[in-house]
Formats: sequence, C-alpha cells, structure tokens
Amino acid sequence: MKLPDIKTVDQSWIDAAARHQLELTKPPGSLGRLEEIANRCAAIRETLAITAARPRIVIFAADHGVCAEGVSPYPQAVTAQMVANFEHGGAAICALTNVLGIELKVADVGVGAGTKNFCVEPAMTEAEMERALQTGIDCATAAADEGCDLLGFGEMGIGNTTAAAAIASAMTSLPVEAVTGQGTGADSGCMQRKRAAVTRALALHSAALNTPEGILRCVGGFEIAAMTGFCLGAAARRVPVVTDGFIATAAAALAVRMSPATAGYLFAAHRSVEPGHASTLGIIGQQPLLDLGMRLGEGSGVPLAMKLIQAAVATFTQMATFASAGVSNK
Amino acid sequence: MKLPDIKTVDQSWIDAAARHQLELTKPPGSLGRLEEIANRCAAIRETLAITAARPRIVIFAADHGVCAEGVSPYPQAVTAQMVANFEHGGAAICALTNVLGIELKVADVGVGAGTKNFCVEPAMTEAEMERALQTGIDCATAAADEGCDLLGFGEMGIGNTTAAAAIASAMTSLPVEAVTGQGTGADSGCMQRKRAAVTRALALHSAALNTPEGILRCVGGFEIAAMTGFCLGAAARRVPVVTDGFIATAAAALAVRMSPATAGYLFAAHRSVEPGHASTLGIIGQQPLLDLGMRLGEGSGVPLAMKLIQAAVATFTQMATFASAGVSNK
Repeated sequence: MKLPDIKTVDQSWIDAAARHQLELTKPPGSLGRLEEIANRCAAIRETLAITAARPRIVIFAADHGVCAEGVSPYPQAVTAQMVANFEHGGAAICALTNVLGIELKVADVGVGAGTKNFCVEPAMTEAEMERALQTGIDCATAAADEGCDLLGFGEMGIGNTTAAAAIASAMTSLPVEAVTGQGTGADSGCMQRKRAAVTRALALHSAALNTPEGILRCVGGFEIAAMTGFCLGAAARRVPVVTDGFIATAAAALAVRMSPATAGYLFAAHRSVEPGHASTLGIIGQQPLLDLGMRLGEGSGVPLAMKLIQAAVATFTQMATFASAGVSNK
Repeated sequence: MKLPDIKTVDQSWIDAAARHQLELTKPPGSLGRLEEIANRCAAIRETLAITAARPRIVIFAADHGVCAEGVSPYPQAVTAQMVANFEHGGAAICALTNVLGIELKVADVGVGAGTKNFCVEPAMTEAEMERALQTGIDCATAAADEGCDLLGFGEMGIGNTTAAAAIASAMTSLPVEAVTGQGTGADSGCMQRKRAAVTRALALHSAALNTPEGILRCVGGFEIAAMTGFCLGAAARRVPVVTDGFIATAAAALAVRMSPATAGYLFAAHRSVEPGHASTLGIIGQQPLLDLGMRLGEGSGVPLAMKLIQAAVATFTQMATFASAGVSNK
C-alpha cells in the first residue's frame, strides 16, 4: 500500500514562532515547555494564528489472539465490556474527556474478531494489516476534514501490552525483560507467561522483523495498526497528534519508522509506568509532557496533555506584547 | 494575631476514598497520581461526593524595597504595569485562566506602597504584616463563602525572588547560593547583587529569623504575607489550595511552619526552574504535579494543575463501577 505523503515540519516556522514569543509580556523563555509546544504547533499548522479549539481523541479497540497464552489477569471478554463502558460514558477516558471538553470517538477494529495468536502464527495477514492501517488513516483524515485542529489516540485490547512489548523489543533490540511490564497488573506467573510469549514470538517471526511492516503484521494488533495509521494520517494533514502510553507509543514508533517525518507532528502525553515506554519514546524523539504514574491506557493521558497544548496555544495567541500593553522590557 | 484553626486532614477519609477507587472500572492504581489527588480532595472536603467545579485563582501584587539594591533586570514600575496588564487580560495568567475556564482575581496589597528595603531595615512592621496576612485569609474566606471548591494563588512583584530566596535560606539554613536563582532573567552582575542583598539581610535580621513570623516581617513582602494568609484561610475552610512556583511556595512554607496542618490542604502545581524551589516544596511536603521548565510566576502553573485536579475528581465521581458496568474484574 502507498502511505500518505508527510512533509517534514519546517524549522523556519519554529524560529518565527520563537521570535513572536520574545514580544509577549513575560521574561524570555519563562513559559518553558509551553513555549516549545506552541512553537511546534505553529510550525505544524504553518501559521502564527494557531488554534487548538477542536480536539478529538479516538480510541481503537481490538482483541488479541495471544490472550490464549494467559498473558493478562483479565478475561478477554473485558475488551468488549470496556467498549460498551466507553459507549455508556462510564470509563476513565469518558470522565476525562467530558470534564475537559474534548470529543471522544471509539473505533472497533477487531473486537471479537481479533488477531491470531502470534506465538503460533503471524498476528494478521498483509491484507488485514493494510485494512487496519487504512482505517486509522481514514479516521485522521475525516477528523481533519471535520475541522479538528488537535488529535489524540488511545487503545483498548486485553493482551495488548504483550504485543507492544514484542514490538518494542523488535524495534530496539532491547531484551524482552526490559520492555515487558505488568500491564493491567500481571502477577509473577502472568509476567512469566508474558515474557515467554514475547520470546517465542520474536524467535518464530525473526525473519520478518527487519521492517516496521513486518513487525506490525507478525506481532502487532489491529488497534495498534490503526493507531499507526492514525499518526500517519494526522501528520499528512498537518494536525498535531498526541500519543498516550506504552501501547499507543509503540504504534507511533512504527509510524515514525515507516515515515520518519511523522515525528515532528507527535506529542507524547505522559510517561507511563510501563518499563518499555522509554524505548518507544526514544524512537519518536518526544519527551512526555506529564509524569503522573499512570498506566491505564484507553488514551487516558491524552486529554490532560491536550489541555496543556490548548494552554500553550492560548498564551501564544492571546497574550499582549510589551509594546501593546505598555510594559517596560529589560 | 490569632491565626485561624486548621484541622488535620483525616486519614480515614483518604482510606475510604481509596476503597472507592478499587470499585471503579480500571486496574487498581492505574490512574497513578490522579487517584492520590482525588483521595486527598475527598479527605479535605470530608465527602466522597467531591466537586472541583468552581476554581478561583488570586494573584497578590506588591512592590519590594529591595529593588533599590539592583536585584532585578526589570524596572520596579513593571509591577504596576503588569497589574494593569492583568486587568486588561494581556498577561499569561489571563490567557491560561481564560482558555481553561478558571476565575481570576487580582489583589493589590502594596503596589507602589511597597515594603522597605530589607537590606537596611525590616521589610514591614508587625502591624503591616498582620494586615497583609489578614487580607489573604479574608480572600480565601470570601472565596469559600462564594462557593469556590478549589483555590490557587500566585504573585506579581518585581524583586520578589530575592525576598523568596531570603525566606528559603532562613527557613532551611541552606546557603544563599543554593536558593538564589535568575528570577526573571538576572545576568551575572544582577545575580551577584541578589546574593549580596540576601546575605546582608540575613545577617542584619538574624536575631528575628527563628520564627516564621519574624522571617516574613523582616525579609518577606506584602504579597508573600497575603499568600501565606490565603493558604491558612483556605485550609481553615477545608478548600484544596494550589501553590505556584518559588515565591508562592515560600509563602506556603511559612503557612505550614505557622500551622503545620495546612500542608494537608496544599497541592504544588509545578516544579519551577528556580533552584530554591525544592527546599520549600520539601517544607510543604508536596511533590509538584507538573515539571514544564516554567519560571514566570503570576500563578501561571496553577491553572494547568487545576485541570489535573478537576480531571482527578471527575474520574472519581463519574466513572462506572465494575458492578454497574458489567465489566469482569480480575
């Protein structure tokens, strides 16, 4: 499949935004990372008249065949149950987006009809992977068409920290132990099965793991492929896009490996407790905005980070200049 | 003067809130610090039906006699100019509170009529200190009476990082160098004058620096005293109160030394770039919620943290339980 064209974010726009920052009534640099955020948004949107008025989060949900290996403390049925909980407004992400005024969509990309057990065979076929990638691209394109100027994403899929650990290890060559964490709360037996599943899968598929597409197809998941597509689609439409924790960032890292210019459009919401998160954050080249000890998934870090981005944009566009306010500069 | 009575935050409410968290449709502990925040809010308000629907930030502004020592790169007139900028909506805190839906008030507690130069004499008289403390207490009481369920504060006062450095050094016995930072952007000459001013002041007033009241009166500022009073007043009315950066936290630390139970009502918005901030954060016993490289003051970290607190409260009060949502638990 042909991936969308993605333009490298233009440094000259970042420089122009940084010059504008110096005019605003504050000591130079005193808003710290809020300044970096606004400057990069200006470069992504190619305007100093930036907005972040219509944020949207999409949660991609799918099931994982690797659950057969006993890798999660929760039964696989929880994926579908949580999708119903999203629809009824009872999940954490619903409370967060509701109180913070952010639009939330849920995309079922394989609940029930999940991936194959990647300890036995590739998680998906080439055609299945392309369909899931395209769904993600299409979701981002539709959001841009509808006027969304800030996007974010998250996931639901019992078993998907196991897939993310396999992806992280395959992309970074880090040992399985370094990227496999407790997920929803695995006990020591469950952790042992997770590590064993990842180890077996990486050995079984080793010949196919030298490309991001091979990694995604063999040890990924449908919601992971859709999130990868979502990053590519958002970047192609020049919309800033916020990744969540370990699983979401594994998907973003695959997007960056497929199309390196994607990195300039990404913001990392938060640092997850999952030990493998740092490795995929490294691939996307982003420092997380928040570090709150979260490890829930379902995009739950994204709304919090979106408020920081909206705040950064507001200071950039609404503050008075030294000249307009009659404030003495140094 | 008699300070208001402050009740120690009750651990049994924190425990009750933590038990409620276990019912909600998420892996136990997976919302990290958001859970801690909500649990403490429940204990502060003594209810599980917590709200954070009416947040208010008060900026206290005043001038500092120590500006005569050349401690700031900005002229002293900027204090009044920035107060005008607050009133016209052009400052960073205005853009932030506006976009994030938070009420903002500005209290002039000594703009123009500032403190004395504390390198020469005490910054204020006992009566002046008590009046400023009382103004802060009254601001918090009025906010509570008007239904505010979340409070925060910040400051404006050219020269006030010098006062805060003197307070931090006096409270912690840390060397002047360890708590004196660049403030609004002091160059090396300015830094030398700042350190010298703090050193002289601490020597001059050494006999009076063994109580928080003595420190506040001799090397404080009117807006610092008002912020100290604001913390005490908020705690007395059992309203969570969010401190900003280095100067605001110096005021909060004085409140905690005057009345240790105040600490349980405080949240620290962010970790400032100012090197002395860690020492006063230690006194109030709070880990900052954000670390964004900010050093602006004027309460600019507070609105960002208030959104995290509102988010934490929303998850606590709006999420479905495993039982109500029909989601399988482990």
